[in-house]
Amino acid sequence: MYELLKGLRVVEGSAFVAAPTCGLYLAQMGAEVIRFDNIGGGPDFRRWPLHENGASLYWEGLNKGKKSVAVDLGRPEGREIAQRLAAAPGEDGGLFVTNFPVEGFLSYEKLQALRHDLICVRVMGWADGSQGMDYTINAALGLPQMTGPVGDERPVNHVLAAWDLLTGAYCAFALVSALLARMRGQGGREIRAPLSDIGAATMANLGFAAETWLNGQQRPRMGNDVFGAFGRDFTTKDGEKLMLLAITPKQWSKALEALGIGSEVAGLEAEIGVSFADEGLRFTHRDRLYPLFERAFARKTAAELAPAFDAGGVTWGAYQPLEAALEDRRLFKDNPLFEAIQHPSGLTYPAPGAMGTIPQDRRGPVRPAPRLGEHTDEVLAEVLGLGSGEIARLHDAGVVAQA
Amino acid sequence: MYELLKGLRVVEGSAFVAAPTCGLYLAQMGAEVIRFDNIGGGPDFRRWPLHENGASLYWEGLNKGKKSVAVDLGRPEGREIAQRLAAAPGEDGGLFVTNFPVEGFLSYEKLQALRHDLICVRVMGWADGSQGMDYTINAALGLPQMTGPVGDERPVNHVLAAWDLLTGAYCAFALVSALLARMRGQGGREIRAPLSDIGAATMANLGFAAETWLNGQQRPRMGNDVFGAFGRDFTTKDGEKLMLLAITPKQWSKALEALGIGSEVAGLEAEIGVSFADEGLRFTHRDRLYPLFERAFARKTAAELAPAFDAGGVTWGAYQPLEAALEDRRLFKDNPLFEAIQHPSGLTYPAPGAMGTIPQDRRGPVRPAPRLGEHTDEVLAEVLGLGSGEIARLHDAGVVAQA
Repeated sequence: MYELLKGLRVVEGSAFVAAPTCGLYLAQMGAEVIRFDNIGGGPDFRRWPLHENGASLYWEGLNKGKKSVAVDLGRPEGREIAQRLAAAPGEDGGLFVTNFPVEGFLSYEKLQALRHDLICVRVMGWADGSQGMDYTINAALGLPQMTGPVGDERPVNHVLAAWDLLTGAYCAFALVSALLARMRGQGGREIRAPLSDIGAATMANLGFAAETWLNGQQRPRMGNDVFGAFGRDFTTKDGEKLMLLAITPKQWSKALEALGIGSEVAGLEAEIGVSFADEGLRFTHRDRLYPLFERAFARKTAAELAPAFDAGGVTWGAYQPLEAALEDRRLFKDNPLFEAIQHPSGLTYPAPGAMGTIPQDRRGPVRPAPRLGEHTDEVLAEVLGLGSGEIARLHDAGVVAQA
Repeated sequence: MYELLKGLRVVEGSAFVAAPTCGLYLAQMGAEVIRFDNIGGGPDFRRWPLHENGASLYWEGLNKGKKSVAVDLGRPEGREIAQRLAAAPGEDGGLFVTNFPVEGFLSYEKLQALRHDLICVRVMGWADGSQGMDYTINAALGLPQMTGPVGDERPVNHVLAAWDLLTGAYCAFALVSALLARMRGQGGREIRAPLSDIGAATMANLGFAAETWLNGQQRPRMGNDVFGAFGRDFTTKDGEKLMLLAITPKQWSKALEALGIGSEVAGLEAEIGVSFADEGLRFTHRDRLYPLFERAFARKTAAELAPAFDAGGVTWGAYQPLEAALEDRRLFKDNPLFEAIQHPSGLTYPAPGAMGTIPQDRRGPVRPAPRLGEHTDEVLAEVLGLGSGEIARLHDAGVVAQA
């Protein structure tokens, strides 16, 4: 945890990936982030992977460092509490992150009646309000048909919910940007971030859309080949798969040197009459180049290639399963982002703090996710100013619950 | 374009995807974003896809709404100009986004000597400074082995550079957060965002890492099955592929209703002795459930299923190629994010503004990418305060260039 956002009070009413990661990034930069959830948990409270005791490792990963209020959102009194939390007072409050629907009890209009300068960042599926989740939006954008081995026509879904993740980080950016604007007198606003728009805009930002407009059809499936440059997986003598990438001329020359195939490649250049200093020509003629690389990789083991690649500054990486990554000192094992902490599941395992690193600042401790409703009483008292009698009444009526 | 960040002056020295998207998001929220590039273009200036005239549709997609300064970064005088731009004066200046190396002429130490409270957000490959790009980091995290059809052992790379995109949006968040902290007296700082850390932290945030720590091995490859719930692609009578998803109990019951297989599923529940209201049990027994769904999909065409699914509030999506998505009124064709503008390539095609939508605010015009060096003279005069004689001398010496 860092303290860039110390003093901010953000309220989160959310489920799944996008909105919770938004709150996570804010919390890990020092904001106080208060989640409200239905008593017993929202629709993602039991999402897999689960511990054998039923706790969701997913939920406790996404909600680290947040506070939790449990409230019955099915009842008017519970909904009113959620609304009042979303519109919490204070110069650095009134910051709400949600994926609740545009209409309904957490509409911007209803919340703005409680706080005129409210900032609300809202994750949506489709921009028109209809149901959409990462996997259905991804299917609509053509990517599953571009993914996977050549010759296989089946669509290949991504395993990493990339649109959710991009949307979550973009929402954190949007929220702080809106706060800056409010501090400068622009007032509050709602910012909607539909996965469908994030997806369409990104396909355009990266040139996929323009390419398709020009060519009349999308980029064909090309396996693991990196589009427009030189990159692919190759197999070593001992059967390991390594990813090799050469986008810049420097990356290209270093790869040739480390593999000792400079003269063979020069011969091919002379034969075809091109210079592979041009990344596009490397791509165009990749079927001629691949055999040279395949033979060079097949001559050596991964253990022989790795130090040569590193010494030569080659851009490469081994394919490894996650269990090997967990033993990789640069990724998990000795990574200062991670700290072994106890989680609400009762398990102790390493968890990361903020994804960015500030060399000048000390990393504060990594904080676990809350137990559901752990901070109900504290938040009702401190944020909404309720007295202990009123809080007791809400408990008795079953409107709120404390862990 | 929106105006939340109006008045901010951000300087960008960057290439590829992550850092340029950071600058793009800032520009589209109203910041003035000034790119500096080598005369003739940086390492990504000719990245594919290309127009037949050689212009990069990729570069002009990622740099919309920015200003461009062309400077010879190989010469000390050019490097000094880049340093002075990065450390630009002004209360809302001194904001630098880059993927240049930690050490070297754009190190934080060197820039801080020019401006003590500089904010620098730096995209990196590996956290230790070694070469890493999206595809090599992804290989190291195990995802390519979890992706693609069951029974195929080959690693499957993603086509969408998800780690780059997440990193870019996170950097935009980090930059505005650091500005907020500086406004509140915390001073400036460098924030480093290595793809390796963003990747490792995300694999932990989503529960992948904890699951693997507990089980000793990573999640197996499972094709297009959504982990821990019910979701997969199914084929209609007319051979179309549709993605169907049911994570919540409501999504599940609506899918059964729309497909008319409620009683068959109830029969299976009775036979096995479980309730599929539990998403995990739907996943555990998915091989029993799939045939019921496959038969139901095979009975109807996509044209018959689509309205029934929409009317029933089912979470689904058709797999479609990008050329069909471009004709999809919700994604591209009638999407108010998009506006047909002329780009530096000379082509006119639709391009998106900010990915988020603010219902209260008017969307300003979508601005194209600059021509390389289009704003050299303007920026040297306005930001660095150089006189016309000095600017002419820099041109004569070949240190800078104007488009």
